[in-house]
Amino acid sequence: MRFTGLSAFPLTPLADDRIDEDAFTAGVRRLAAAGVDSITALGSTGSYAYLDREERARAARLAVENAGDVPVVVGVGALRTSHVLAHVEDAQRAGASGLLVAPLTYQALTDDDVYGLFDDVTRNSSVPVIVYDNPRTTHFTFTTELYARIAGLPGIASIKIPGVPTGPVEARAHVERIRAVLPEHVTIGVSGDAFAAEGLIAGCEAWYSVVGGTLPEVALRVTRAVRDGDPEAARAESERLAPLWGLFAEPGGSQRVIAAVAEHLGFARRSSLPRPILGLDDAQRSRVARVVDDLGLAEGL
Amino acid sequence: MRFTGLSAFPLTPLADDRIDEDAFTAGVRRLAAAGVDSITALGSTGSYAYLDREERARAARLAVENAGDVPVVVGVGALRTSHVLAHVEDAQRAGASGLLVAPLTYQALTDDDVYGLFDDVTRNSSVPVIVYDNPRTTHFTFTTELYARIAGLPGIASIKIPGVPTGPVEARAHVERIRAVLPEHVTIGVSGDAFAAEGLIAGCEAWYSVVGGTLPEVALRVTRAVRDGDPEAARAESERLAPLWGLFAEPGGSQRVIAAVAEHLGFARRSSLPRPILGLDDAQRSRVARVVDDLGLAEGL
Repeated sequence: MRFTGLSAFPLTPLADDRIDEDAFTAGVRRLAAAGVDSITALGSTGSYAYLDREERARAARLAVENAGDVPVVVGVGALRTSHVLAHVEDAQRAGASGLLVAPLTYQALTDDDVYGLFDDVTRNSSVPVIVYDNPRTTHFTFTTELYARIAGLPGIASIKIPGVPTGPVEARAHVERIRAVLPEHVTIGVSGDAFAAEGLIAGCEAWYSVVGGTLPEVALRVTRAVRDGDPEAARAESERLAPLWGLFAEPGGSQRVIAAVAEHLGFARRSSLPRPILGLDDAQRSRVARVVDDLGLAEGL
Repeated sequence: MRFTGLSAFPLTPLADDRIDEDAFTAGVRRLAAAGVDSITALGSTGSYAYLDREERARAARLAVENAGDVPVVVGVGALRTSHVLAHVEDAQRAGASGLLVAPLTYQALTDDDVYGLFDDVTRNSSVPVIVYDNPRTTHFTFTTELYARIAGLPGIASIKIPGVPTGPVEARAHVERIRAVLPEHVTIGVSGDAFAAEGLIAGCEAWYSVVGGTLPEVALRVTRAVRDGDPEAARAESERLAPLWGLFAEPGGSQRVIAAVAEHLGFARRSSLPRPILGLDDAQRSRVARVVDDLGLAEGL
């Protein structure tokens, strides 16, 4: 399949160190009902790296079962190739429509290591693969040349890039430079929610979205404005959301913030992230709640 | 126990994606026979982050069984606290004399998260804990203040620091600054083999050593020179080894180099690291072999 539009990345809330299955499935159903284009279960926001094989297989099954007609992508990244391939097998068995693969690192990886990883994965999978470039979590930096090498592998369907330069001209030039080296069937998806409007306007075909995984209506307003040929409306909506992007950019990262949003709105219990991640403290939670209320993010839920 | 002297970090060689138990146990026996002060199984060099629970429990048992009277420390780090505690249980059951705990990250951790991790570990373990500060692999940066907070927890026995500043005066000032905030019973161990001689001379009580895990005699010469009050001999030996430190400092990191050394010397089969890590290419292996031969590193094996 061709990955375009809004791909929503739900949290995988925990309760007492186990997946809170009711919260997770309710979240997936909300995303499907909102009409997102795909659901990426077990992305970074979905804590895939912290879950064991059984939990990941279970979450993949629950996501597919509760997503209705919406295609489900499953994150299968792991430090060791053989573990990635085990997750690939489980995700495919669960009915995944795509696989999201990040080159996790403990020891630093070379370009040849990462190419070899994607070669191994595409040789051993029957559903399309999304290349997950997220240097903040993986500490691996892709070059455009490596995008091109990997995109040449059969089975690669999309590349999730980590934001675009600020400014419409620079953003478009950046996306066009990547576009120029990719086969036409490989889509480019922007991530880093603050960059999404500009990324979509600059030619990214998809948005791999943190906020869309919990507040899909918010992300759909931006995505649909671009799709409907109204970039200024998309920019205006994204600018209106600046206080949320500001929280995402703080040192703890976007996952803690969106988890606090979900907990504030009753979508997850308190302390829904895997320890040792403690989540936001009370003062930070108050600021998050204020932004949610001021921006009316919970309207229509 | 008090962790001092040379702690040797053996590789955990793989063969066909399984632990090569013969190679691993032979390596542990060589370390014990050489007279290292402790053996740290499943350190970064020992690929702990890539191995599953069963493999890690098995390697811990094999290490203790083959180490004779030499105390064995076991690396128990993992991304999720509950997984760390499972490894703690396995390591203790295997007979570990100490636990090495690194704050692994996928999502960035705060100081409070990391303090909480060590609090959870020390509450749930009955053997001493070594704090593993390795920013190149964990991407977490400890402050001296955080060392002090964590070292105040009962059960913390040592802090493995990532090298010391170049220059004897700066190195001593650095170690003394850390020493000043730690309880007397908590030792400081230097890592980053190129810094070891200067670190030991500057007052570190231990060396957590990559090279010592495969070539213990080399590391013992440096360690014993300092212990025996001959810092100039230690410095001279470390300077003689500069070509090896140069290889360790290349972008692929020390693990690939020491694995290539082990493979060159017949201590492990080719491709002994977990995929996707491909190890050094043929040209790099030739350079490693030349350094091993030129420096006489295999003499006396």
